[in-house]
Amino acid sequence: MITVALAKGALLKDSAARFAAAGLDFSAALDKDNRQLMLPTPCGRARALLVRNGDVPTYVAYGQAQLGVVGYDVLREHQLPVAQLVDLGFGGCRMAVAVKASSGYERAADLPPHCRVASKFTHCAREYFDGLDLPVELVHLNGSVELGPITGMSEAIVDLVATGRTLRDNGLVAIEDLFHTTARLVGHPLSMRLDDGSLNAIVEAVRTASAAAGAAG
Amino acid sequence: MITVALAKGALLKDSAARFAAAGLDFSAALDKDNRQLMLPTPCGRARALLVRNGDVPTYVAYGQAQLGVVGYDVLREHQLPVAQLVDLGFGGCRMAVAVKASSGYERAADLPPHCRVASKFTHCAREYFDGLDLPVELVHLNGSVELGPITGMSEAIVDLVATGRTLRDNGLVAIEDLFHTTARLVGHPLSMRLDDGSLNAIVEAVRTASAAAGAAG
Repeated sequence: MITVALAKGALLKDSAARFAAAGLDFSAALDKDNRQLMLPTPCGRARALLVRNGDVPTYVAYGQAQLGVVGYDVLREHQLPVAQLVDLGFGGCRMAVAVKASSGYERAADLPPHCRVASKFTHCAREYFDGLDLPVELVHLNGSVELGPITGMSEAIVDLVATGRTLRDNGLVAIEDLFHTTARLVGHPLSMRLDDGSLNAIVEAVRTASAAAGAAG
Repeated sequence: MITVALAKGALLKDSAARFAAAGLDFSAALDKDNRQLMLPTPCGRARALLVRNGDVPTYVAYGQAQLGVVGYDVLREHQLPVAQLVDLGFGGCRMAVAVKASSGYERAADLPPHCRVASKFTHCAREYFDGLDLPVELVHLNGSVELGPITGMSEAIVDLVATGRTLRDNGLVAIEDLFHTTARLVGHPLSMRLDDGSLNAIVEAVRTASAAAGAAG
């Protein structure tokens, strides 16, 4: 049986739609009352593992799921050995440096050396500021990163920005982008190499559906 | 103004009750429709920062909050420089090693060397298994840790157990406790040292209310 790790939350609906195009019906996962974490498809060929966004690469890297859907931001942050197979196109947003609108900083390089930067994505942030040769103190937060500058704990944040509404509501402004992120189909490398064709058929169907959605969108 | 970092979620209601005994009214934080992360008390003497459980020690360690309420489990896991002031008594549960009920393991020391253990609390787990002199591979998960043994990714988990219902529902059983945890009032060490008496008055009132609740409970 093929196991697919799907991230609960914002990516789930579109993920299910892509797999539906590959003949795998994960729509039971979209039921609000569903509390099961392991859901077989009606056809019995596959099952979904419903896990946290950040845990998808773990299940795929360890081979407990042969396929998974997760944001590129998570792949960049965790650096686990999974194969990136298809850019699914949805879940688009950008990883950005943001500061208080009143701060006057216009570029990341304007930040003072050794200032504090709060982020859920400290690995990505570390890489970025190292690239600028700007030494900063990273403060890891698990949520509500916008509180960093508001409380005065940090000069800046590195966080995902979709519409920019959370930033605006909190008097913050994005001043530089690290990278753009979308949802990705990932695979367990060994399972892909040993594949009898059934995994590849799913990957190709998802790829075709994503290309069609991209052309339509 | 005194800032108190409060963990959103299970500890919030009891936390607000303890501070009410100290004359600080954080009841607005309990309103389901509240979306503000920074809430002043009606008296204007203090404000609450509503943050993730795991972020409370960060705000207190950096001095953005002078006081905070957080589970002892989080303090053990993150090891940040905050002063533990009062055991508040509520939010009791235990950090335990759990395995599949069908596995036959009866003690943590029965686990095979180099087996995998999944946990959100990998620092606590590392310390524990080091103490047993049992080398294990820790797999960090962000949620639904019970999927570790169910999917076969790990032999065991280390996780918080309150009623044990989640374990039972998933065919798991706790075989050993690492430690018992309850909510703690913590303080920013420097703020406590420089206190003009106003912080200490709150701490003492919370301590008295906790002792009374403990005696009544």
